[in-house]
Amino acid sequence: MKAVILANGEFPSHPKPLNELLNAPLLVCCDGAIDRLENLAITPNALVGDLDSVKEHLKRKYESILYYDPDHNTNDLTKAVKWCLNHRIKNIVIVGATGKREDHTLGNIGLLCNYARMGVNVTMLTDTGMLQPLLTSTRIESYAGQQVSIFSPNNQTVIYTKNLKYPIVNQPLPELWMGTLNESLGDWFELTFSPGPLIIYQKY
Amino acid sequence: MKAVILANGEFPSHPKPLNELLNAPLLVCCDGAIDRLENLAITPNALVGDLDSVKEHLKRKYESILYYDPDHNTNDLTKAVKWCLNHRIKNIVIVGATGKREDHTLGNIGLLCNYARMGVNVTMLTDTGMLQPLLTSTRIESYAGQQVSIFSPNNQTVIYTKNLKYPIVNQPLPELWMGTLNESLGDWFELTFSPGPLIIYQKY
Repeated sequence: MKAVILANGEFPSHPKPLNELLNAPLLVCCDGAIDRLENLAITPNALVGDLDSVKEHLKRKYESILYYDPDHNTNDLTKAVKWCLNHRIKNIVIVGATGKREDHTLGNIGLLCNYARMGVNVTMLTDTGMLQPLLTSTRIESYAGQQVSIFSPNNQTVIYTKNLKYPIVNQPLPELWMGTLNESLGDWFELTFSPGPLIIYQKY
Repeated sequence: MKAVILANGEFPSHPKPLNELLNAPLLVCCDGAIDRLENLAITPNALVGDLDSVKEHLKRKYESILYYDPDHNTNDLTKAVKWCLNHRIKNIVIVGATGKREDHTLGNIGLLCNYARMGVNVTMLTDTGMLQPLLTSTRIESYAGQQVSIFSPNNQTVIYTKNLKYPIVNQPLPELWMGTLNESLGDWFELTFSPGPLIIYQKY
């Protein structure tokens, strides 16, 4: 089973995240993002969060699918991921998680590694590309000329790449900008690294 | 002397970055961002970059302020910062540097530390808040209830905070999300850390 989580960042406008949202086999909505679904007359399967951004009349309307989680140590996106895990759903696509506050954007992208460690097969689709966390060395599907950026939250991680225009040869990426603006040379590229994790961005 | 750099992300819509742009004592425009200035009939003092996104008629029109820098190892924002340093300008406000591709957003935010190391007094104003790099322990002006996020590109940096709602007590922040969503308790907060750097986000 796959779930799509709609986070409370900017509502998607690109066809890729929009199609995921519209064709979601199961749709989990984070808190105030329900406003946009309401406008589009889309009813999610679950409305999860601390619900501080959900209007009273919508709380009443969606009472049967409300999952109130007041935990101050996690954000609404993480609460939605936990809801999925509690329902044995491990394939998750996240949309609408970027584009408003930059600190939320950075935080949500960083959380992908956490979700991977929780056993979730997760991708984040934005209006420009796809982000995914990697816990182990991987070959990734691509296309020649695809723009690729690599983020390494752990400064100690040593990385070796294959089939990228600007190879990384047994080096760490101690700063956020150091692995950006690379390019795939074909229909795959490969990342060998230890200890990880990495976060990969691929432009559509 | 202060310069404002307009990067080629989303053009600012919030009054804070817009006012900086409109009242810039010196305005440096990155590459394709000249399109928006042209629409607003604003002429920058310099148009800097590899110029691959500048239309031919605009290259001719702005010939006298064109600074072509083809270096493939730096992005257009860094080229603009270097242009400022070459003109002995060390106070820089960056606007329009976020909001399109997420990898550019992360990269540009990460680069703030680099600019600080180059001796630049730099802030980045987005549509939601202000980002600044810190190389040394600092007391920062704030207001009670201001939302604050702390990013620590170096996993080893040990941080001690004062006057924040969720104190950090001699801990590192090994992941991007770990220092997000804090709150100032008054008109200042303090960050003591080693070795650094840190990047601070303050919501307006």
